[in-house]
Amino acid sequence: MGEHLAFHGTVIHSLGLSELEIIEDALMVVSDGRIVRLDKHIPKAEVPTLLESLSSPKEVRYLGRGEFLIPGFVDTHNHAPQYAQRGLGQSMHILDWLDKVTFPNEARFQDIGYAKRIYSQCVDGFLKQGITTASYYGSLHADATNILADLCLQKGQRAFVGKCNMNRNAPEFYRDASVESSLADTEACIRHIRKIDPEGKLLKHVLTPRFATTCDPELLKGLGKIASENPDLPIQTHFNEAEQEINFTKTLFPEFKNEADLYESFGLLNRRSILAHCCFMTDYEMDRLKSLECGVAHCPISNMTVGGGFMASPIRQFLGRGIKVGLGTDSGGGYSSSILDAMRQALVASNAREVASQGQDRGLGISELFFLATLGGAQVCCLDDKIGNFEVGKEFDALLINSGTPGIMTMLEDWDSTETIFDKFIMTGDDRNIDQVYVRGRLVKS
Amino acid sequence: MGEHLAFHGTVIHSLGLSELEIIEDALMVVSDGRIVRLDKHIPKAEVPTLLESLSSPKEVRYLGRGEFLIPGFVDTHNHAPQYAQRGLGQSMHILDWLDKVTFPNEARFQDIGYAKRIYSQCVDGFLKQGITTASYYGSLHADATNILADLCLQKGQRAFVGKCNMNRNAPEFYRDASVESSLADTEACIRHIRKIDPEGKLLKHVLTPRFATTCDPELLKGLGKIASENPDLPIQTHFNEAEQEINFTKTLFPEFKNEADLYESFGLLNRRSILAHCCFMTDYEMDRLKSLECGVAHCPISNMTVGGGFMASPIRQFLGRGIKVGLGTDSGGGYSSSILDAMRQALVASNAREVASQGQDRGLGISELFFLATLGGAQVCCLDDKIGNFEVGKEFDALLINSGTPGIMTMLEDWDSTETIFDKFIMTGDDRNIDQVYVRGRLVKS
Repeated sequence: MGEHLAFHGTVIHSLGLSELEIIEDALMVVSDGRIVRLDKHIPKAEVPTLLESLSSPKEVRYLGRGEFLIPGFVDTHNHAPQYAQRGLGQSMHILDWLDKVTFPNEARFQDIGYAKRIYSQCVDGFLKQGITTASYYGSLHADATNILADLCLQKGQRAFVGKCNMNRNAPEFYRDASVESSLADTEACIRHIRKIDPEGKLLKHVLTPRFATTCDPELLKGLGKIASENPDLPIQTHFNEAEQEINFTKTLFPEFKNEADLYESFGLLNRRSILAHCCFMTDYEMDRLKSLECGVAHCPISNMTVGGGFMASPIRQFLGRGIKVGLGTDSGGGYSSSILDAMRQALVASNAREVASQGQDRGLGISELFFLATLGGAQVCCLDDKIGNFEVGKEFDALLINSGTPGIMTMLEDWDSTETIFDKFIMTGDDRNIDQVYVRGRLVKS
Repeated sequence: MGEHLAFHGTVIHSLGLSELEIIEDALMVVSDGRIVRLDKHIPKAEVPTLLESLSSPKEVRYLGRGEFLIPGFVDTHNHAPQYAQRGLGQSMHILDWLDKVTFPNEARFQDIGYAKRIYSQCVDGFLKQGITTASYYGSLHADATNILADLCLQKGQRAFVGKCNMNRNAPEFYRDASVESSLADTEACIRHIRKIDPEGKLLKHVLTPRFATTCDPELLKGLGKIASENPDLPIQTHFNEAEQEINFTKTLFPEFKNEADLYESFGLLNRRSILAHCCFMTDYEMDRLKSLECGVAHCPISNMTVGGGFMASPIRQFLGRGIKVGLGTDSGGGYSSSILDAMRQALVASNAREVASQGQDRGLGISELFFLATLGGAQVCCLDDKIGNFEVGKEFDALLINSGTPGIMTMLEDWDSTETIFDKFIMTGDDRNIDQVYVRGRLVKS
């Protein structure tokens, strides 16, 4: 499936934070899921002869005006069980939101049938919106988490899938029974993914302590041990998300002055760590993240809505220090599971920071937002050797954009440059303009 | 067309700012475009007999689970010519955005063919997204503005349509030639609308000085005179939008301490005035707006994006003082022409105000956002005797929502209450979930 592909037309990808490359008349050849050629400025008429000489596929998809290829979107932070609760509890305070909406909803994933149905909708919904790589928090249930992994593999999504660890400060009906059972379930999920995807072509288990506040020190220690024994496994947690949460953490762990020291001491901070939110950050903690090579999952939608909250993360400062940053939809805390919406909200959040910092932290531009949604996310997931842009040798995770699909995207005019068309898509397009989605060369939406 | 309609099922509308009324098993009967009955708690089985006794239409649309009627959305502020530029220039500073994107684009509307094409897309696009009433800024061209009015009438949208007045501080290629020609063109547009819709069933001309900075005092004076001679005409302008603009206004009109006094002195502030933005407001100016009964068009999308800006308007304070408030998409300054997006961004903006005011200005809840998008907008337009909710006697401007349409809306669960379904639609639905759109009982989208 999708073993040999060739495209001719416009290709747009990021080479770096502010290096958007727009290649017109590109010829891209994909073989066995990998990009084997990306030639620039190839007149359409020369394509057949060129492919002939390359003993490449003879079938070429010629992209018309308004069509272009971009790398697949990377969602560095979201909660798969919350796919079913997107948009709910927006005016509740964060603890009410957890107690009244989220925990009761996640508890339902003990029911295998429910898990299958919602996770199937979730993976389909993400792929439809162009999310080719997702770092998923599961519920605390090992069985449901394994189902999520099965579905990602079956539907062809690249994913980190994590059984959520939480054995305290959560309701009786929704917490791990003990440290031992929480760790044993985690080990079972790791084995499951290694069984179904032994080469890790698409899947990895991700160690997922929900927060420090919901994990006994013994549990964090156990997860740190698994992390050190399994240097291939990514790690994710919520980090300095809300003042309430930060203060509560300090009460529970008075021996640590901040979350960076706390998680590091348990062996949970390294280059494989994906830290969601990072809203309240001191210079010290930013330095620690940089030294430890941790990545930030910026989730502007939930940061600015759920729990009546509003906190814009200091993204420009992270970028200035060379800290890896990607975008997260954080659905369902974030009401939308679209990375396009996350990009737009990241623009708003960065404008808020610009004003709050009196112009110091410059707002983000569209090419920077696009970087965060693609290559930046790949870096956060330590997958940038495989995906994130169209470098020859990388795997082909791509979206074929069609600006002309009937929907609500701003229509094209004859005089629009390719950059203008790209801006129109980023700011006004939606899933209807994502015509095809490829992961490792496999067509997963058409 | 649409002379007799009957619906049975769920109806949701606002009775006031925090009074969301959800009526299940409602029977709504519409005759000649007007709501003639709205009965509550009518079992489905009784509907045929009841209608028989009323000599009402025999054909009833029975709404299923996930379907409900809401009032049409009111967009109190947007620029029709900018429909073609939504999403462009998001990272430019405001003056660059005007000079490089907006003015050259609006200048194109001298071309009648272009105006027809874009305005047709614009009205279709708005109706598709459930905007049954729009207050449009046109370009400065009388002919193009008349075409916009023709199209609204033909396609069945309720609209205020305004030729934009601007005779200075705009480029040579895009400004009114003189005060006289600007006023004469305005008069011609007023006559045109009175000719094509003599009873004002759908259309009104709206007096539209772009800003004080783009109008000579003589022009403002002339518009004020037209306003006083035509007490049926609404008035719209941009008001205290950006610090730059406010300072420039003070330079041009040193005799006024603030924009409220300025516009009032020219006879442009009264209960028919729709003031877009109102971001920077003193107590004095809020008092003036309240006394003069002006309405506020809150445009959170553009306030937080265009020109790298970020300013959240003090909506809670307006509401607390009893000032009328509605929502504006402000497309194309706002990248989206969806009122659902405007509601979500109003939530974000209100959260920003809550944080900035240390909790004083409470964030807006979903029922309040919905009020702003419907009844609040109708009040701002002084149309609340006709539209905005489903009071018996009002005209039937309505959207039939179908939560089950394939799209990206959060799917329904068996245990969802009607309120939960409503929240899912408001926060995650889009135009695909707007199955039918009615204006004055006429089906304008199906």
